[in-house]
Amino acid sequence: EEEIPEDHPRYQDLLTRHRIENGVEKGITHLQGMHAEGRGSAFDYLLGEETIPSADEAERAAAAHLLLADHPVLSINGNVAALVPGEMVELADAVDADLEINLFNRTPERMQAIADHLRDHGATAVKGLEADARIPNLDHKRAKVDADGIYEADVVVVPLEDGDRAEALEEMGKTEIVIDLNPLSRSPQVAEVPVVDNIIRAVPNITEHARDLADAETDELQSVVEQFDREEALEAAEKRIRDGL
Amino acid sequence: EEEIPEDHPRYQDLLTRHRIENGVEKGITHLQGMHAEGRGSAFDYLLGEETIPSADEAERAAAAHLLLADHPVLSINGNVAALVPGEMVELADAVDADLEINLFNRTPERMQAIADHLRDHGATAVKGLEADARIPNLDHKRAKVDADGIYEADVVVVPLEDGDRAEALEEMGKTEIVIDLNPLSRSPQVAEVPVVDNIIRAVPNITEHARDLADAETDELQSVVEQFDREEALEAAEKRIRDGL
Repeated sequence: EEEIPEDHPRYQDLLTRHRIENGVEKGITHLQGMHAEGRGSAFDYLLGEETIPSADEAERAAAAHLLLADHPVLSINGNVAALVPGEMVELADAVDADLEINLFNRTPERMQAIADHLRDHGATAVKGLEADARIPNLDHKRAKVDADGIYEADVVVVPLEDGDRAEALEEMGKTEIVIDLNPLSRSPQVAEVPVVDNIIRAVPNITEHARDLADAETDELQSVVEQFDREEALEAAEKRIRDGL
Repeated sequence: EEEIPEDHPRYQDLLTRHRIENGVEKGITHLQGMHAEGRGSAFDYLLGEETIPSADEAERAAAAHLLLADHPVLSINGNVAALVPGEMVELADAVDADLEINLFNRTPERMQAIADHLRDHGATAVKGLEADARIPNLDHKRAKVDADGIYEADVVVVPLEDGDRAEALEEMGKTEIVIDLNPLSRSPQVAEVPVVDNIIRAVPNITEHARDLADAETDELQSVVEQFDREEALEAAEKRIRDGL
């Protein structure tokens, strides 16, 4: 990672790719994660590889939701763990959220490798290993969650999530914050807050907004939440992808 | 592969992903190939996952170029070998071309695995293992080619190729046919015939055009070549990606 010069024009793309490749080698990321990341990188390329203004607004709204939450949980899969382990730990600290591992291809070995990886990056508590509750309307393996984690959370951050699971969480009535680079995919479409941005930029920016809003009154946080327009944000991202090319 | 039903709405995407994953497992495809394929799949999604009319014209022009060539060569990398091994062998037969392996991350093991894989799919002769010549203006490893293969070829098909190598081949004066799903990337930009299409659809379609043109006179082939407008094709693909979203 130290070998990639920060002023390289494709720095973020190279860094992302490098981290995912490492994740696959360490058994954290499924091979399909490399494919998903490649797919995301094409959308990022079309977006101009920057946080567009509507994404920054979504990230501020996400921070406000997390600060207002009674029990916020950040969901971690193999790509998230590979790409932003330390950044997710920092966000969890900033908004007092739990970290919970949830995998599409769940094996005990990968669960353990990811838990260790998060602890290496400063996590003190990691949920998801108990798996003593189920998300309704989702097939068995992917439905596994912790009863005192995602199951009872009011606000969940689900980055790089598949559509079925995002929908099932939405149906449970949770406030969902989705990070995804394709504004037309199902996960951002069902989310209360769709963040169309590269997770590498999005997570640190949500943390920054959370720190900025740390002393805000409930009224101010609620006004940030209400001012955010999800339809407008999805349209702005789609327009950028279309016109930016 | 037999498990994916052909009428599945995402049949091609699933098939492609499955073949690349297999390629990685067999040591044919580099892990980065999975990423590149994911990136391509996003562009294919934006194209509508079909061969657009301008791509079909490019594929017909490619067939005409190959039939007119004195010494056509089809370049094979790890993704090409994983995705369309039998299809490349068929195309080579249809236009009497050589198959030559050329890898971005060249190791003796991968060269051998790919040669074996191509032979399993019907190839009788496979070039690239001699590596007794060099493409000028390219760093050492990637420059390696066979003296009686790509080095002396007049027409080369270079699918899913990186920009540096595509440019270096162009500078050697070769007629280059590039297959790539991103019309803005450097390889299609420098190619005489940019084919903006999924390689899984493109290669069989070039073969079909070649069979259709097999008995054509030189005049007719030259007219197919001359009627193809590369700028128009690149613009049509870009427009489709932009409007299709």
